[in-house]
Amino acid sequence: MTDAPPPSARTTLRRGANRAVYEQDRIRSILDAGVIAHVGVATDDGPIVLPMAYGTRGDGDAAEILIHGALANAMMKAGRSLDVCLTVTIVDGLVVARSPFHNSMNYRSVVVRGAATAIDVAEEKAEALKVINDHIAPIWDTARPPSASDLKKTLVLAVPLAEASAKVRDGDPIDDDEDMDGPHWAGIVPLSSSWGDPLPAADLADDIEMPAAVAELGGRNAHAGYAGGALNDRGDG
Amino acid sequence: MTDAPPPSARTTLRRGANRAVYEQDRIRSILDAGVIAHVGVATDDGPIVLPMAYGTRGDGDAAEILIHGALANAMMKAGRSLDVCLTVTIVDGLVVARSPFHNSMNYRSVVVRGAATAIDVAEEKAEALKVINDHIAPIWDTARPPSASDLKKTLVLAVPLAEASAKVRDGDPIDDDEDMDGPHWAGIVPLSSSWGDPLPAADLADDIEMPAAVAELGGRNAHAGYAGGALNDRGDG
Repeated sequence: MTDAPPPSARTTLRRGANRAVYEQDRIRSILDAGVIAHVGVATDDGPIVLPMAYGTRGDGDAAEILIHGALANAMMKAGRSLDVCLTVTIVDGLVVARSPFHNSMNYRSVVVRGAATAIDVAEEKAEALKVINDHIAPIWDTARPPSASDLKKTLVLAVPLAEASAKVRDGDPIDDDEDMDGPHWAGIVPLSSSWGDPLPAADLADDIEMPAAVAELGGRNAHAGYAGGALNDRGDG
Repeated sequence: MTDAPPPSARTTLRRGANRAVYEQDRIRSILDAGVIAHVGVATDDGPIVLPMAYGTRGDGDAAEILIHGALANAMMKAGRSLDVCLTVTIVDGLVVARSPFHNSMNYRSVVVRGAATAIDVAEEKAEALKVINDHIAPIWDTARPPSASDLKKTLVLAVPLAEASAKVRDGDPIDDDEDMDGPHWAGIVPLSSSWGDPLPAADLADDIEMPAAVAELGGRNAHAGYAGGALNDRGDG
């Protein structure tokens, strides 16, 4: 699965290198299909990992992952440096092997390491926030446009995708030869996630129509992904 | 929601303190309902966050979260200290507000900070591995028992649950007063995850019966949780 070289020494997977993926297209399709990122920073008080919404944009050297909000703010204040690790994981199933040593999960995971930079200019911040808000479905354009005060209160961080790697496991368990004739069961239990029917807020006025992007999300595979253009279903697998 | 005090200064939530949960029962029910943990350590090369299987056991001061395997091994080798952060997140829905500034997600998340200690004695290691393997469903007892060699190759780490905190968001978006009479939609889109029908491995002999624990997993809410005894459905919400 390793058709492209790892982008840096610290990004090279040492364990399970046979499952490593460095191609940008595959990495992007996993990031499109994910729902949240777990963002880690080292602080004076030890490492901290928090869940955050995210979005991606740009190609090649300009490709980046964006995060925002109060959580990012707290992490930036706490951290001595802006060195971060963002990990996006989609679990696709439980792998039940004949031997528990080979029990596992099927999953798609991307690890991005890099320096987080704040986006400060108001228009750039609004553009970046649109990318994050539209990551799951294009809901930005039908909402009330952000005010100058909203933008001021929001911190947006960008991390280059230069140091990204992915790891993918799929398929059946792989047991030891000596267990193949034993009496123990082996197989997988698939895991799937889907968006349910949208529920209008209890205090929503009756005459307000549900935006098409929200209506279309209902019933969709949560890991199909929306990449900012046409619906991306590369993540359906 | 804060009926119990935070267990340490670094565990006290500063942002969104109104969503903080410190009661051990609630924290445990979220950990029971989660599928994977994102584990962060600080290394010489910067922070790293990796997805891992986990399990929990014990009560009060003896309560701990367990992780295992090659990944843990790589992290322990890489890290200068064993100080870790384990974060378990369940996303329950997308929160679509009138103003994108109030867009959010409904979620249940637990953050555990602490020192990871290796479990070295073979019998203790087997007991701990059973806890991790049985976290999603009780599949340990119907598999081939672990060999001495399996146990030797597996690293198991325990982290006390003493410094754990949870954050929960549920319900409708909360918009600013001045947006309540505007023309913009607000509501939530629920997200649910479920286990599908178990699929026997392609190389499984025809006469091997599927264990009841595997068969019963099919169709179940993936975030209902299994806490090592009776099926725990506290996480259904």
